[in-house]
Amino acid sequence: MAKELKPPQELSIWEDAQKMIEKARRDGVETVWDRYEQQSPHCTFCELGLTCKNCNMGPCRISPKEGGKMQRGVCGADAHVIVARNFGRFVAGGAAGHSDHGRDLIEVLEAIVEGKAPGYQISDEAKLRRVSAELGINVDGRDVMDVARDLMDICYADFGSRKKEVGFTCRVPEKRKEIWRKLGIMPRGVDREIAEMMHRTHMGCDNDAPNTLLHAARTSLADGWAGSMIGTELSDIIFGTPAPSASRANLGVLKADHVNLLVHGHNPVVSEMVLAAAREPEMIAKAKAAGAAGINIGGLCCTGNELLMRQGIPMAGNHLMTELAIVTGAVDAMVVDYQCIMPSLVQTAACYHTKFITTADKAKFTGATHVSFHPDNAVKQARVVVEMAIEAYERRDQGRVEIPCEPVDITTGFSIEALLSALGGTLDPVLDAVKAGKIRGFTAIVGCNNPRIKHDSANVGLAKALIKKDILVLATGCVTTAAGKAGLLMPEGASMAGPGLQEVCGALGIPPVLHMGSCVDNSRVIQLCAAIANALGVDISDLPVWGASPEWYSEKAVAIGLYCVASGIPVQIGTPPHITGSDVVTNLALSGLEDLVGAAFLVEADPEKAADIMDERIKAKRKALGLSE
Amino acid sequence: MAKELKPPQELSIWEDAQKMIEKARRDGVETVWDRYEQQSPHCTFCELGLTCKNCNMGPCRISPKEGGKMQRGVCGADAHVIVARNFGRFVAGGAAGHSDHGRDLIEVLEAIVEGKAPGYQISDEAKLRRVSAELGINVDGRDVMDVARDLMDICYADFGSRKKEVGFTCRVPEKRKEIWRKLGIMPRGVDREIAEMMHRTHMGCDNDAPNTLLHAARTSLADGWAGSMIGTELSDIIFGTPAPSASRANLGVLKADHVNLLVHGHNPVVSEMVLAAAREPEMIAKAKAAGAAGINIGGLCCTGNELLMRQGIPMAGNHLMTELAIVTGAVDAMVVDYQCIMPSLVQTAACYHTKFITTADKAKFTGATHVSFHPDNAVKQARVVVEMAIEAYERRDQGRVEIPCEPVDITTGFSIEALLSALGGTLDPVLDAVKAGKIRGFTAIVGCNNPRIKHDSANVGLAKALIKKDILVLATGCVTTAAGKAGLLMPEGASMAGPGLQEVCGALGIPPVLHMGSCVDNSRVIQLCAAIANALGVDISDLPVWGASPEWYSEKAVAIGLYCVASGIPVQIGTPPHITGSDVVTNLALSGLEDLVGAAFLVEADPEKAADIMDERIKAKRKALGLSE
Repeated sequence: MAKELKPPQELSIWEDAQKMIEKARRDGVETVWDRYEQQSPHCTFCELGLTCKNCNMGPCRISPKEGGKMQRGVCGADAHVIVARNFGRFVAGGAAGHSDHGRDLIEVLEAIVEGKAPGYQISDEAKLRRVSAELGINVDGRDVMDVARDLMDICYADFGSRKKEVGFTCRVPEKRKEIWRKLGIMPRGVDREIAEMMHRTHMGCDNDAPNTLLHAARTSLADGWAGSMIGTELSDIIFGTPAPSASRANLGVLKADHVNLLVHGHNPVVSEMVLAAAREPEMIAKAKAAGAAGINIGGLCCTGNELLMRQGIPMAGNHLMTELAIVTGAVDAMVVDYQCIMPSLVQTAACYHTKFITTADKAKFTGATHVSFHPDNAVKQARVVVEMAIEAYERRDQGRVEIPCEPVDITTGFSIEALLSALGGTLDPVLDAVKAGKIRGFTAIVGCNNPRIKHDSANVGLAKALIKKDILVLATGCVTTAAGKAGLLMPEGASMAGPGLQEVCGALGIPPVLHMGSCVDNSRVIQLCAAIANALGVDISDLPVWGASPEWYSEKAVAIGLYCVASGIPVQIGTPPHITGSDVVTNLALSGLEDLVGAAFLVEADPEKAADIMDERIKAKRKALGLSE
Repeated sequence: MAKELKPPQELSIWEDAQKMIEKARRDGVETVWDRYEQQSPHCTFCELGLTCKNCNMGPCRISPKEGGKMQRGVCGADAHVIVARNFGRFVAGGAAGHSDHGRDLIEVLEAIVEGKAPGYQISDEAKLRRVSAELGINVDGRDVMDVARDLMDICYADFGSRKKEVGFTCRVPEKRKEIWRKLGIMPRGVDREIAEMMHRTHMGCDNDAPNTLLHAARTSLADGWAGSMIGTELSDIIFGTPAPSASRANLGVLKADHVNLLVHGHNPVVSEMVLAAAREPEMIAKAKAAGAAGINIGGLCCTGNELLMRQGIPMAGNHLMTELAIVTGAVDAMVVDYQCIMPSLVQTAACYHTKFITTADKAKFTGATHVSFHPDNAVKQARVVVEMAIEAYERRDQGRVEIPCEPVDITTGFSIEALLSALGGTLDPVLDAVKAGKIRGFTAIVGCNNPRIKHDSANVGLAKALIKKDILVLATGCVTTAAGKAGLLMPEGASMAGPGLQEVCGALGIPPVLHMGSCVDNSRVIQLCAAIANALGVDISDLPVWGASPEWYSEKAVAIGLYCVASGIPVQIGTPPHITGSDVVTNLALSGLEDLVGAAFLVEADPEKAADIMDERIKAKRKALGLSE
């Protein structure tokens, strides 16, 4: 740490984060911000997307300046081809994450159907039947497991090579599908599009940047309308469809006198079982025997969102809080599945008494304790995990514990089903509010944190700026905790909204920011947009809607952004991906896509400026629909 | 070109290459060697595999020296994790290339079955029935199209998520399969392993380098025993199983008085149709009307290998000859499908009258003429391509033509079926020769060229060194042309072999280097090794065999190398992939894998030294089998 340390107040807007950054420094624990400083300045070639390692004639890099020595890679690829290839693989990485997660849920469903998944069950039979019927499965009078088996078959087929269009495109407005067919970006199969993306970006395949980007769009659509959507829908069917409930957020959800077990990652398949085990009387008794008042489960990142949405489990923090949670000294175990789990957490945990437990055979961490979870052993393994947390609690040094604040209240659980239920079974009240200009539009703020940006400043700043303009905000992923800590997930938060939105929130008793779930649950956002478009008889791109990811960091965020854009939803991002080394690729992303799919990306780091630009488009879209601006 | 130009004699061992490099310089045409010089020195971080662009907290890079400032990426990933993640994606890129190629052949088979592929047919019904029976399909007395439909279903299933083991593992010795099951690397599905590799390498998933590498092995096995093997077997079924035939190689196969049309890429689906069109009397008449003596089809790279193996079409050159072929001024059209087609070829072609034509919608080239091929329109489109070549011929400037040499004779077509047929239907004569020490072992020399290495010096050098030691060499991919130009693909080449091999070649009338096909056809190599192991009742790793890729450049070569190693075949490579920034990964590749799968990689650039090391192991393996060394 040669450079001068920045004051914690410059790194995060939150008191709990600032205090824990200070404690980490006192405790001599490295954090993500320290490593960010060590890695700055970044390599310009890599940052611009101008390096290529896709073969062994290189590595190559392209001079960012015209006339520079290196204008082409050894193979002859220019800046545009190299940037497009890198970006294509970036999107493939994101789509693969979500979709492999979705596949894991199909496998759990298969195990349930085969009676090989003790502890798992069909929790929402009505949704199983409803979704199955949508996909053309005969559900009338049939046994639930027979329907589930057919649904499983159809979902698996979406991961194969034999379809021309994935199943859930049945939800997409016909106009939109025609655009996809015309451009050749109709998603055929999840894995197929990912594998083809990898093929295209091999040396000597796709050497036309726009063509590569179109396939990136197709790959992302396979994520949004298949991989992720399957993940969401099957999670609801297996673990229950979320309904509004109350919970709490921030590091104050940790309890000094409890065994604190944090779940981190993305897939509810593990965390739901850990939660169930932690609620077993036998486990609670063990915790009490160890001197604890009980077992406290808290969530991090998206597996936290999953448990929050369905079980009301409190949220300890988002991406940049995961190390800091351990720094409290109060976390006895952190159990993780996959994605966005900083490898550093093994070292952070080792600085305290915290047991760091991995569970997915495809996501092992050197130095961690691995407890391999499968549908057939999850109940047993979940108990093993909880017992490890209790054992760790016995080693906890209470003198090192600092829980930095009191938790704040939040409301969660706004699945589409819950929304419809709150609205009396129809979207009409919301559509009426939109038509009346009380809700002027919608923005889904999604994604991550990134140490490039002051922690949660843009997530919260954008949400506040938008609701002031009577734009209803939907939140998923790591934005959830940000909005929650800012008081925006409570009905009282409507006091920060414009008059129209305030009125609607008051009438319906909802917050101005609605929590819709984890990052795979952005499928709920596109499904909702499609439903609204269908209800109005227009295309998704005609709606006064935006996506936004002000603090994104993950490949998944780019896949989400791209499937939103390809679905007709423009997307604001706070920082560009590694594409700015090619004006062809950058211009396509920022404007060219508008001509092709009726939406494009906006890169604007300043939340107020972003909100103003987004507002202008919402005005234009409202006008085009014949509504007041 | 600021640096001093190297003499052509230092760049390639071949006269045709040297002369064309000189002509390129005279004509002011940039070549791959020029760009290689411009890109040298390479970025050390990238070369060592120590850069990461997998998320937007970075890009990051790890200091190669201990104690350097940057020991971890922003996420906390260390050198080992970063190298493993990059390598995993590298393998995924290679596996995706081969496998997406395999899928294209399933789609052609499907179109044949459905009667929607005019011009394509089942050319080898016996093989269709034999392969189908191997995979458990009932073939007795059934209509050929019914069998084909079942085979198609089984092949598609290998690209899905529902299998535990891909179909062609039925060919693998049981001992080997037990190793794969125990290590968790039994390939389940082609696309699935690729997508999972992408998922694992997303930030915060697999953070244990050995675990990531094991999945890379699984991904490569899905390539070798499914994607590539399906590609090979279906190509044989559709276009005919290769049998020994005579042909020629080097740039001398171009004819000054003919329309010269070169096919380049990998998949016979396009090139076979182009060849058929070029043989149509109507097309020949058009060529003659344009003043040409006829139409001359020549091959480059692996689509060249495919046509060479099955149709005896001559081979104009391998990877580093593709630009130089155009520099002759005699190439009227180059028609390409995908993979290993240097993007520079568009510019090279633009320096002459050459029409550069792309055919795959997934491999467009900015500036090229795109003629979109699909099974239903291939016959028609192939004629369009041939007509374009004829038109270009009319624009040819004969004053710029220089065909630098006379072609050399080669023998090709050594499919396993052809080998068995030559041996009287059984492997026994070869096994007897092995037991008698006349053939001391086998090495498949496969892969590419790379401007890091004097063109073909190592490919030819290793082949010569090995046959001298009575080690029979099998050649695929770009090694084919190298071996052919060196006279090693003719029975007379046996004069360069040791006495034992010389005797066997003389008795059987075969060359000391047998051409087994394109790079997907390395599946023939592993199938042959499995068959020999099964015949001897041992594991593949017990055999006196090697793979080698002295001049590799492509991600596919690494996928091939890894599936060979994971199948028990040690592999020599001339240069390391971008992994040397991690001793964990490097040591695993060079020795750790030996303990896990009974084979590992050898990095040795010097062909003589490599041959000596390989010979030592062959001695040891022979000894262990109870044979003379």
